[in-house]
Amino acid sequence: MKKAVGIDLGGTFIKGAIIDEEGHIVVKNEIPTEVEKGPEDILKRIEVLVHSLARGASVALSDLAGVGIGIPGFLDDATGMAVEVVNLGWKDVSVRDPLKERLGLPIYLENDANSAALGEAWVGAGRGRDSAICITLGTGVGGGIVLGARVLRGANVMAGEIGHMVMDPDGARCNCGRHGCLETVSSATGIVRLAKERLARGETSSLNANQLTPADVFAAAAQGDIVATEVLSYAIDTLGRGLAIAAVLINPEVIVVGGGMSRAGNALFKPLNASFKHYALPRVAEVADIVPATLGNDAGVVGAGKLALYS
Amino acid sequence: MKKAVGIDLGGTFIKGAIIDEEGHIVVKNEIPTEVEKGPEDILKRIEVLVHSLARGASVALSDLAGVGIGIPGFLDDATGMAVEVVNLGWKDVSVRDPLKERLGLPIYLENDANSAALGEAWVGAGRGRDSAICITLGTGVGGGIVLGARVLRGANVMAGEIGHMVMDPDGARCNCGRHGCLETVSSATGIVRLAKERLARGETSSLNANQLTPADVFAAAAQGDIVATEVLSYAIDTLGRGLAIAAVLINPEVIVVGGGMSRAGNALFKPLNASFKHYALPRVAEVADIVPATLGNDAGVVGAGKLALYS
Repeated sequence: MKKAVGIDLGGTFIKGAIIDEEGHIVVKNEIPTEVEKGPEDILKRIEVLVHSLARGASVALSDLAGVGIGIPGFLDDATGMAVEVVNLGWKDVSVRDPLKERLGLPIYLENDANSAALGEAWVGAGRGRDSAICITLGTGVGGGIVLGARVLRGANVMAGEIGHMVMDPDGARCNCGRHGCLETVSSATGIVRLAKERLARGETSSLNANQLTPADVFAAAAQGDIVATEVLSYAIDTLGRGLAIAAVLINPEVIVVGGGMSRAGNALFKPLNASFKHYALPRVAEVADIVPATLGNDAGVVGAGKLALYS
Repeated sequence: MKKAVGIDLGGTFIKGAIIDEEGHIVVKNEIPTEVEKGPEDILKRIEVLVHSLARGASVALSDLAGVGIGIPGFLDDATGMAVEVVNLGWKDVSVRDPLKERLGLPIYLENDANSAALGEAWVGAGRGRDSAICITLGTGVGGGIVLGARVLRGANVMAGEIGHMVMDPDGARCNCGRHGCLETVSSATGIVRLAKERLARGETSSLNANQLTPADVFAAAAQGDIVATEVLSYAIDTLGRGLAIAAVLINPEVIVVGGGMSRAGNALFKPLNASFKHYALPRVAEVADIVPATLGNDAGVVGAGKLALYS
């Protein structure tokens, strides 16, 4: 069976795996990114990781179909460069050609959220569906749109930036420079910010501003805390409206929600479904289930592997 | 050269044309819809129209590639039925099979906004671009998304419903039942409604509530009328934000704006571009021009013809 390497390049770890044609992980591994050592060192680490994965799977490098790499930033497909990767401090770093030369394999670059979406759509929660919108709720709100067996890349690999839909033009400033982007409200960061703002106004709550995670907010809401309940209600309602907007454009068969916050389970998915149905045209809502992601942290490497297997 | 028939089924007229492989209109014609006579009569009229078009182009019916039909409502692709067409008062009307039987030609059904989008993307303002978002500003805001040479249809032919993105959850009630859809604000109907609401509040304006079109609002704004200026500013800013939201999801090469209101020219396109750039990620905005549609009322028949030629 054909196999390929999938790499998920993150700010803390570089994850890698050998993926087979059916989407199984043959072997996986991860190494620290050590951003401070610079791009050249990171490319070297990716090379070493690929060699170690091949050894672990007892496959000759030359028998692999290629290497797919999910990168958390903006890419230029024509040149194979990472144009801007904020988490790594990269600007205009050539990735494809140097790695191709070192490894002698085809290299495929993709945005990391797109890779994860492709993984979930292929063998995760979107398996068997023809179209999927996949989001990851973390520090931001990452997104990818999968149509047929391919991720929608767009004119310059910017498609699927669901986290940057401007939901409220008068909202808080986003890292991207705009105001009121979905991820200023419905990400882990957004929920913590909203809760802290209310605590700072002196509202009564069991929440502790000095130690506050989305899990704390969900836990407090479950105990009837009003601040926590209202913050979650707003964040989830806004997310439901964002997904409804995306769905009336894409009309997908499934919407997959992953990332740390998706572990809240029913406390997230029940109100999220209600809000989605409230804002989406009924014919759109009736065909699009909202379901939790199933691949967890493996989605990125699986999707990146798929890129190399099927591009 | 291969030719096909494109039909644009509207509430007032049924437009039809013979389209060649290069997107030229060989001959076109239109007949009244006469909705009140019911679906059976309308299918009969389409049959008669197709025969007369073929005669006009001196083509034997059997030499045509097929008939594409743009329908202003919800479709079921599996059964070839129009599930709901509000303007025609249709519910569950079988269209594909009866016409196929009468004409002996393949019949292709498409949503009318999708047909128009396909026409503009093919040989109109989107010619030569690989991806396009096309909208029509009229009574509502119609939309279609074209990727590669195909219109995005989605799971049940509902993709591209840009007019029903909920921009303001506290906004006015939409015909679809939701509140604050884009078309409650940025359509011809929306602009007239917003202006009338302000006149009803007794605000000073040169506008006449009893005779009020978007053209009147544009004209008054050009003369410095404050109500007209503010209404347009809000409607256009909301449209710019809606297009920015669609663009960060789709990352298109071009955005085509048609319909009666697009005749306002710079008075529309200049602020619309500014608003779009304000709300879209810079890398998304820099590749996506907003341009006026060029096919006018022919977009629908051209796109429907393309469906029949290239499906």
